[in-house]
Amino acid sequence: VWLDGFHRAFLRLEHAARAASVLQLGGAVGTLAALGPRGPRVAGAMAAALKLSLPDIPWHASRDRVVDVGAALGLVCGALGKLARDVSLMAQTEVAEVSEGNPPGEGGSSTLPHKQNPVSCAVALQAAHRAPGLVATLLSAMPQEHERGLGGWQAEWETLPELFRITAGSLQRMARLLETLQVDASRMRADLDATGGLALAEAVSMALARTLGKAQAHAHVERASRKAVDDGAAFVSVLRADADIVNALGAELDALLEPESYLGSSDAFIDAVLARRETDERRRSV
Amino acid sequence: VWLDGFHRAFLRLEHAARAASVLQLGGAVGTLAALGPRGPRVAGAMAAALKLSLPDIPWHASRDRVVDVGAALGLVCGALGKLARDVSLMAQTEVAEVSEGNPPGEGGSSTLPHKQNPVSCAVALQAAHRAPGLVATLLSAMPQEHERGLGGWQAEWETLPELFRITAGSLQRMARLLETLQVDASRMRADLDATGGLALAEAVSMALARTLGKAQAHAHVERASRKAVDDGAAFVSVLRADADIVNALGAELDALLEPESYLGSSDAFIDAVLARRETDERRRSV
Amino acid sequence: VWLDGFHRAFLRLEHAARAASVLQLGGAVGTLAALGPRGPRVAGAMAAALKLSLPDIPWHASRDRVVDVGAALGLVCGALGKLARDVSLMAQTEVAEVSEGNPPGEGGSSTLPHKQNPVSCAVALQAAHRAPGLVATLLSAMPQEHERGLGGWQAEWETLPELFRITAGSLQRMARLLETLQVDASRMRADLDATGGLALAEAVSMALARTLGKAQAHAHVERASRKAVDDGAAFVSVLRADADIVNALGAELDALLEPESYLGSSDAFIDAVLARRETDERRRSV
Amino acid sequence: VWLDGFHRAFLRLEHAARAASVLQLGGAVGTLAALGPRGPRVAGAMAAALKLSLPDIPWHASRDRVVDVGAALGLVCGALGKLARDVSLMAQTEVAEVSEGNPPGEGGSSTLPHKQNPVSCAVALQAAHRAPGLVATLLSAMPQEHERGLGGWQAEWETLPELFRITAGSLQRMARLLETLQVDASRMRADLDATGGLALAEAVSMALARTLGKAQAHAHVERASRKAVDDGAAFVSVLRADADIVNALGAELDALLEPESYLGSSDAFIDAVLARRETDERRRSV
Repeated sequence: VWLDGFHRAFLRLEHAARAASVLQLGGAVGTLAALGPRGPRVAGAMAAALKLSLPDIPWHASRDRVVDVGAALGLVCGALGKLARDVSLMAQTEVAEVSEGNPPGEGGSSTLPHKQNPVSCAVALQAAHRAPGLVATLLSAMPQEHERGLGGWQAEWETLPELFRITAGSLQRMARLLETLQVDASRMRADLDATGGLALAEAVSMALARTLGKAQAHAHVERASRKAVDDGAAFVSVLRADADIVNALGAELDALLEPESYLGSSDAFIDAVLARRETDERRRSV
Repeated sequence: VWLDGFHRAFLRLEHAARAASVLQLGGAVGTLAALGPRGPRVAGAMAAALKLSLPDIPWHASRDRVVDVGAALGLVCGALGKLARDVSLMAQTEVAEVSEGNPPGEGGSSTLPHKQNPVSCAVALQAAHRAPGLVATLLSAMPQEHERGLGGWQAEWETLPELFRITAGSLQRMARLLETLQVDASRMRADLDATGGLALAEAVSMALARTLGKAQAHAHVERASRKAVDDGAAFVSVLRADADIVNALGAELDALLEPESYLGSSDAFIDAVLARRETDERRRSV
Repeated sequence: VWLDGFHRAFLRLEHAARAASVLQLGGAVGTLAALGPRGPRVAGAMAAALKLSLPDIPWHASRDRVVDVGAALGLVCGALGKLARDVSLMAQTEVAEVSEGNPPGEGGSSTLPHKQNPVSCAVALQAAHRAPGLVATLLSAMPQEHERGLGGWQAEWETLPELFRITAGSLQRMARLLETLQVDASRMRADLDATGGLALAEAVSMALARTLGKAQAHAHVERASRKAVDDGAAFVSVLRADADIVNALGAELDALLEPESYLGSSDAFIDAVLARRETDERRRSV
Repeated sequence: VWLDGFHRAFLRLEHAARAASVLQLGGAVGTLAALGPRGPRVAGAMAAALKLSLPDIPWHASRDRVVDVGAALGLVCGALGKLARDVSLMAQTEVAEVSEGNPPGEGGSSTLPHKQNPVSCAVALQAAHRAPGLVATLLSAMPQEHERGLGGWQAEWETLPELFRITAGSLQRMARLLETLQVDASRMRADLDATGGLALAEAVSMALARTLGKAQAHAHVERASRKAVDDGAAFVSVLRADADIVNALGAELDALLEPESYLGSSDAFIDAVLARRETDERRRSV
């Protein structure tokens, strides 16, 4: 999921950056009049020298391409922010399924020595917090006056570089995070088991439906789920105390409550995302 | 310039809308586990039935495609806002080069009967004012939690439709405006003439440079320009009082001060924009 | 902390709303000229009839008071969003220290019956996500033209009511939440104990400092903390295995690791917040 | 109008800055536990030493006071942006009622020597464009986690200083502008006269109403206004050709068409704004 969202945002940025690499040469009022009939030829030569596309018309006050780069930077910050949000939630002391794996001396807390602050997530979340306002500034400056904006144009000068800066910072931190991320699989498993199999209620319900019918199956499982929650009992114990369920499922019940047996199409999804990434990378390197 | 900017923004919107027309079907946690091995086949059939693309992986909490549609709507509002800004500036009582040409009863002022308010521009500028904040909301909601966001997802529910609404309103108004716009060419010409040819100082300077050299030419024209501004005199009169200029340019001077003779590459630019529009329209209608 | 932040934001809103309850009556161009010398008297009577303040000067294009109301609504949404953020974090399945205590049928999940979604928090977080963009719209519309803005003024028409709506929704939900919130004190205690007393490392360090000196005390506690984290051991066991610590603290150690004994000035802070609230409520009811 | 709006925004900023000058001292988790029973006394002494107010409770994750300062900076930028918008509109070549009066070498255009760019307005409008997005960032970061935000807090670090910087720049430029602003009263009068008295149609209508009744008066004036606009004739000539109007008003007509005679309560309004400013300044200097 993280790669899928990030990959798409990154392609958007690449596309927007390429589309915005366009010569702006218009002379005093955008007509190239001072160059006489040689205007287009001069513009063409200048674009070639700068490796920029040649626009159909000077665009000094048509800021869509510049703003689109900003919006794409915002999308990248948002996609990285999603990754950082998830990691920071899983890194909470009470969850502890992952930690950033920072080098010693980074992210520690002097007064609370057991705390390992997810400082890279903080950088990415900070960027995701700031990008929206900066993109809004670029968008709000689009209705620029005549051939040269007054104030709107100038509002881009600090804003677009700042968007690049925070995106770069977020990228650099999240790239490192993915290399150092510590995943505690046993803790993940323990968190799954903590609800005594409740997370797999759907699997049980689906299997039951084959013999009891869908409505009966759902009623049985819902009753068992509520009982487990209300009594603080393990879901599996409640299920085993239900004769109808035991009769219908028998030994299959234990297998149904194994998370590994209920991954659905996850592998197919993961393969598809990785394949897309590889294909696109190959195309880019051509 | 208006068409160039708008056309590009509109293509962006079309592209973003197509890219976002993607099936979202993931079941309880995004694995399609309840469908067992038939998951991908069911998803494929559902996408086909709904005429949506099939994604590589469920994307409930990867909002980039949705946000990108919002950003593209913002670009359209901004491009239309630029048009509206220009028209409203030209429609000022003191400029009066264009008016919206509204049907009777629309845009009038009861207390100031000579005023014709540019009400369509107000609609488009209002949309351009509101879009940035709405796009920022979508962007800021991207870092959604795990497989289902809490609050961020819900923040899109009112925001995206509102962006569509204000974009549609702006489009409808600006489409009508371009059909009814009254252009007062004689007033435009009078406004150009009001500076006694100062707007063409560059043309004179370029012509002078052929005989006097660039530096001398610029110095002569700058001196004449300042004198015209300071004395409130017509630029042409000041030029004619400068023997060097008269010697160098002779009868050419009058022609140089005709705006029509100093349009540069405007026609080529306009043709290029129109041709692009036509090509793209043809491609879209295929 | 929640009450402190909310109370202040709410007072800000009250103040801004009162300051914005000001008559706007200026006639065609803001001079009240059509009323002749009676202008101020008419304005005074109208303000009295409407229970509004009389402004020093018509303010049709000076939007600060209106925008300030919007900013105050944003602050209220933000303060409530902080409450919702904290509750939603504590309501996570893996933390489970609180739940919203919604009436039956609200917040449930059909496929995951053990899940109780914090739906009220979702409403407040959605409002906190949306308010910033709406406030930005109001702020960006402030530079309005002459005596009547074109587009900027109109941008307020939908935006300010929407801010009121989402603030009201957030307030209503958070008010109910605080009435129904289920706090699981034993789970809170268990989460505290889960780190084997690490959260109280500071208390131990402070007590040790009295005999070992500050530097020595800190070194001992830091070493013990790291060992506890690295070995997955209970902090208290590691401490008890350190002869220096046992010698210095003796029986006091157990008491030091009781969270109840390390609340600092919490009670004084809470009393101060409640007293402020009461005083302000009394003043408002006068 | 400019002073009225700015003065209010500036007082808001002063008030918000004072309200935010509050000690933050909470220790590791906001309880001051490490200070034992001396916590409040230490906090009190520290606040006194730093000339800060003592809060009821530590506020590390309650950002309303900080955000409120940002919102007030946004209001100041907006109020100055309104001034800049008006000046830039009046400084247009076709209106030319004011110019910035910049020192030589500032705001000039090399290719268009008669142009004097309103560069100070550009600075203030740029600030007014950027402030809304920055304020939105601060607002969106309010729902911070527990006792220390992750990402939201960090998002303030660059944003608030940037708001101070752009506000300071806008203030400095607008302060200078008001000292150097060149007002061309004769051009203002000419622009008023350009509509042949149409701007005073209301005055004529009011005077006519005394003899013809309100409805008749309005009908006469509206007819004359439309005729003047449609024929491009001077309003005064059309009025003089209407026997009813001449009979009713006689020699009074010319006086009615003098703008100076139709200023309404302007002077009273101006006096009230200046008096308010003076009173507040006196109070501040105490």
